[in-house]
Amino acid sequence: MSSDQSYKNMAGEEMISLMKTLWPFCRSITGDGVRATLNVIKKKLPRLEIYEIPSGTQCFDWVIPREWNIRQAYVLNDKNEKVIDFTDHNLHIVSYSIPVDAEMDIEELDKHLYSIPEQPDAIPYVTSYYKENWGFCIQHSKREKLTKGRYKVYIDSSLKTGSLTYAEILIPGKVEEEIFFSTYICHPSMANNELSGPCLAAQLAQHLSGINSYYSYRFIFVPETIGAICYLSLNLEELQRKVKAGFVLTCVGDEKAWSYMPSISGNTYSDRITKHVLSALKIKYDEYSFLQRGSDERQYCSPGIDLPVCSVMRSKYMAYPEYHTSYDDLKLVTAKGMSDSFELYCKIIEAIEADCTPSYIVKGEPKMSDRGLRPTVGIKGSALSTMDMMNLLMYSDGQRTLLEISEILNKPIWELKNIAVMLSKAGLLEILSLKK
Amino acid sequence: MSSDQSYKNMAGEEMISLMKTLWPFCRSITGDGVRATLNVIKKKLPRLEIYEIPSGTQCFDWVIPREWNIRQAYVLNDKNEKVIDFTDHNLHIVSYSIPVDAEMDIEELDKHLYSIPEQPDAIPYVTSYYKENWGFCIQHSKREKLTKGRYKVYIDSSLKTGSLTYAEILIPGKVEEEIFFSTYICHPSMANNELSGPCLAAQLAQHLSGINSYYSYRFIFVPETIGAICYLSLNLEELQRKVKAGFVLTCVGDEKAWSYMPSISGNTYSDRITKHVLSALKIKYDEYSFLQRGSDERQYCSPGIDLPVCSVMRSKYMAYPEYHTSYDDLKLVTAKGMSDSFELYCKIIEAIEADCTPSYIVKGEPKMSDRGLRPTVGIKGSALSTMDMMNLLMYSDGQRTLLEISEILNKPIWELKNIAVMLSKAGLLEILSLKK
Amino acid sequence: MSSDQSYKNMAGEEMISLMKTLWPFCRSITGDGVRATLNVIKKKLPRLEIYEIPSGTQCFDWVIPREWNIRQAYVLNDKNEKVIDFTDHNLHIVSYSIPVDAEMDIEELDKHLYSIPEQPDAIPYVTSYYKENWGFCIQHSKREKLTKGRYKVYIDSSLKTGSLTYAEILIPGKVEEEIFFSTYICHPSMANNELSGPCLAAQLAQHLSGINSYYSYRFIFVPETIGAICYLSLNLEELQRKVKAGFVLTCVGDEKAWSYMPSISGNTYSDRITKHVLSALKIKYDEYSFLQRGSDERQYCSPGIDLPVCSVMRSKYMAYPEYHTSYDDLKLVTAKGMSDSFELYCKIIEAIEADCTPSYIVKGEPKMSDRGLRPTVGIKGSALSTMDMMNLLMYSDGQRTLLEISEILNKPIWELKNIAVMLSKAGLLEILSLKK
Repeated sequence: MSSDQSYKNMAGEEMISLMKTLWPFCRSITGDGVRATLNVIKKKLPRLEIYEIPSGTQCFDWVIPREWNIRQAYVLNDKNEKVIDFTDHNLHIVSYSIPVDAEMDIEELDKHLYSIPEQPDAIPYVTSYYKENWGFCIQHSKREKLTKGRYKVYIDSSLKTGSLTYAEILIPGKVEEEIFFSTYICHPSMANNELSGPCLAAQLAQHLSGINSYYSYRFIFVPETIGAICYLSLNLEELQRKVKAGFVLTCVGDEKAWSYMPSISGNTYSDRITKHVLSALKIKYDEYSFLQRGSDERQYCSPGIDLPVCSVMRSKYMAYPEYHTSYDDLKLVTAKGMSDSFELYCKIIEAIEADCTPSYIVKGEPKMSDRGLRPTVGIKGSALSTMDMMNLLMYSDGQRTLLEISEILNKPIWELKNIAVMLSKAGLLEILSLKK
Repeated sequence: MSSDQSYKNMAGEEMISLMKTLWPFCRSITGDGVRATLNVIKKKLPRLEIYEIPSGTQCFDWVIPREWNIRQAYVLNDKNEKVIDFTDHNLHIVSYSIPVDAEMDIEELDKHLYSIPEQPDAIPYVTSYYKENWGFCIQHSKREKLTKGRYKVYIDSSLKTGSLTYAEILIPGKVEEEIFFSTYICHPSMANNELSGPCLAAQLAQHLSGINSYYSYRFIFVPETIGAICYLSLNLEELQRKVKAGFVLTCVGDEKAWSYMPSISGNTYSDRITKHVLSALKIKYDEYSFLQRGSDERQYCSPGIDLPVCSVMRSKYMAYPEYHTSYDDLKLVTAKGMSDSFELYCKIIEAIEADCTPSYIVKGEPKMSDRGLRPTVGIKGSALSTMDMMNLLMYSDGQRTLLEISEILNKPIWELKNIAVMLSKAGLLEILSLKK
Repeated sequence: MSSDQSYKNMAGEEMISLMKTLWPFCRSITGDGVRATLNVIKKKLPRLEIYEIPSGTQCFDWVIPREWNIRQAYVLNDKNEKVIDFTDHNLHIVSYSIPVDAEMDIEELDKHLYSIPEQPDAIPYVTSYYKENWGFCIQHSKREKLTKGRYKVYIDSSLKTGSLTYAEILIPGKVEEEIFFSTYICHPSMANNELSGPCLAAQLAQHLSGINSYYSYRFIFVPETIGAICYLSLNLEELQRKVKAGFVLTCVGDEKAWSYMPSISGNTYSDRITKHVLSALKIKYDEYSFLQRGSDERQYCSPGIDLPVCSVMRSKYMAYPEYHTSYDDLKLVTAKGMSDSFELYCKIIEAIEADCTPSYIVKGEPKMSDRGLRPTVGIKGSALSTMDMMNLLMYSDGQRTLLEISEILNKPIWELKNIAVMLSKAGLLEILSLKK
């Protein structure tokens, strides 16, 4: 096994391990579940900064809501049996349910129950952040067995002035220009459409901390929608000035598909790099329309924000049957699924770091035989030849970027970058930074 | 039946009624047939202005010819039977035939006869505007029955200094910028390739007179070619300054086809609006090349004129068997054919009036739940949803026009305009005029 | 037979005759074989200038090597029989072989033998310009018959300070702007991939000397690679200032294929003219990628040189089995193959000379009937009509070039140029030069 392969495998195991630690916390868009999640991640990323934004703070069109916390919640039947118990699964409670301590008939209770007839053994995921309400989510098969009679409903939750919690880590590079990653930490116990994103983000941040990168790298862990909006309201000008490329990390854990969600224009630097990497790695993927968006690209790509953000996922939110149910669990997400995503994003980072504007220095072809230029032996898996060198020189007119040349030559940018560095050392090529 | 549908049906009946009134006049590029036609249309459009341009007037490369009028024309055989009689059908006489009062053998007469062997019962349409000549057009079946012998030919026509007659109506809107419609009134009794155009033009002008439009609307009724050239020579600078979009109205009366003739570039605002409307209405149509042009787009699109003019027709001139024969009659053109064309052009007008540059005001997604925004119930035939609202906001970057957004979202512009107005009232969107 | 056809046939015979004269010379990148070749061509083109560039001269990344000449070379077996003799075929000697006079075993000799097992009766073409070496090329069938024993190797060559020889002819036109042709004269006795190029170049230059052309025409006869680089190092600024279009003439003599090698961008004026001519002549051809380049477009298209150079060949170098062997001979190349290439390049020249920016003078359509404009009868093979005239006028907006209009109208540019001249004489069109 190559060292690359074992590094990747180790990353897969680390991400699954982190995911298991984070699984039990009952996250929502605010509250102690989020704090616990971020504190665990901070152990992996000591320089992670955690922020608290007070309830009532205006963020663009939104206001930070009251903080929600929950301790226990259950429904007792008239035999005093717990027919639903939050202790069994975080998904049993509708997120942001208000406190309740009441008795009622089955008919009244039923108005507050949520289940999926088509997936009778799945618990659905339901929220009511901005409208006061309460409810329980249960398996449809269990719901059908509830008998007539009186039920006691008990929800020990609180909805109080507090704060919204998010975290951020910036890994500085040689330049201030930065690559931006956003992931969310607001869903309770689900794996692909929740924990896969922050676990990958943490792993990538750790990986980048060990590298001398050209670009700076920023990762944010925010509750979806309100958190992204809150973060943007505080940092927009800086992001607009610095972000060269950006990605939403979500649904990156299963092995069933690859999915690409473009930015709104579909043609930002993020999009072009992403499509090059997917193609260079010969990954088959489904290309979605921005009209099928669903995560925080909704904020990052909106008018007046205009950040170059796209997303590569495995099975895309809303497009897989386990989505937003208790089936989205640690069987769906695998170490291999996570480590393949880790590898893909590492390659995206490698591609961005590799990009440059090569400029051929001499005129006409170089006299290669005098210069003893042959590709070094060690270029992994490549069949690069003198012809590749000549092709690279030929297209290096000081205008085309290495990314553009890679697409003309149909070669991975990281392989061409190795050649470019060799040709630069041979005095044939000047490697210029990308123009902004 | 909806009020839209009955309005459209009424329009169809009115156009057919006007067409029947105009049918008997013997139109040509000049003369009393044109005047009579325009006077009838003026009854429908009281503010129609009728112009007379004297014979001999230079118009670009052309000179207004002498005025032609005809009273009667026939051919008698040696039994004094009228074997051809202009009274039977205006098409029997070659347009611009000079006066004749002569006797001749069948051989001499035959040189002046026109018929179509392939359509033996059709009378063809023949003109000789710029070369002095005379002739009769007859059914080929009748021509074959003409026997040897002497014939008396009598044509009571005049070809004298007079004028070319055309008409124009301008319906002012909020701005001087205008939408231009051109139709012709120079063919004798034919329906699709003559009367359908002016009857639709009159109906559209009447329709627009009852609307508070943003743009001004100009309709001209001119003899084809010489009339358009004459009009352009008098009004070119004004048209170039004001015309936002333009259309030639011709062949809009049958039900057999839809045909689109692009402008010379194929990419003017007229073209883009037209293609959007055809697509939004799910109309299947034949797209022709400008190389197959045949009506006054030949003038409007020529170098130095450069007006954004295209055309949507039903069966296109030259492309249907009845074209330029007595078969192009009131059986070919129907109230339904006319009213469908009326509806199409009303939708084109609606689309142009709806277009704008929407600009989203807030940053990030709006908090829709606080704003109670739901599409109003009454949007006809639409399945517009909160998602459509969000999509519209997302693409409203103050650069894209509503037309462009409609094509991205694959929704009719008039439906999106309703949403845009609602969002504007909700303070989310600013609706800016199109840039010129 | 038309005069065009007999002119073309005569050109074919002349080129084959020249090729037979040039066949025996042992060319290389320097030496008397090149001089003899150029002196023969100078008899056909008296104004050809021959240049000598001294060994040791720096040319961009290269240095002019020592001059190589060879008188005789053979291998004797131990019965004193000549088993290989340079006198039999120039290809028997590896080009730039150093002098040798030695005896050796078959094992030692064998290290210096080159043959092609897959083509056992072909002598391959091998060079060693920049690494001192010697060798013989033989039929594989003969090589297999060499017996064990001692061999005497004798090569009477010299490798001395001297010069590189090339030639150039400039045929002045009305303007300094020029059309550039480059061909090479460095391979020994081969036909398609050597002599077809200079023979066609000489014929085209002779043809152009008899024409009053608008553009100036430059032909250079250089050794491939080093010669092109040398020429560019001496003339780059002038070429960059003057060259409107350029072509590498190589592999233009067989009848088996047509091949198009684009410039690096694929979109220079040379490319656009070439594709128009190939299409107008209804020639089916293989379009190669610039990544499959192989002749001096490698120099002309390189960064910092950036000349608009492409190439139309018959069977492309490297793509036909006879390439770089003794099979590439005067049976492969034919008078018809050569004369078809001559005709093609004459048409390319005709197309370039025909191109212009036509500008329609009057507004609206012209009154053609007053102007008596009908296409003259004599336009060979054309079905040009009044409609073609009208179409040409319609698109002649003073911005589109005649080439662009030809592609819109799908008509050969030389036919449209005849129409344009006629319309210009009629006062309808102004014919402007191309903008640079």
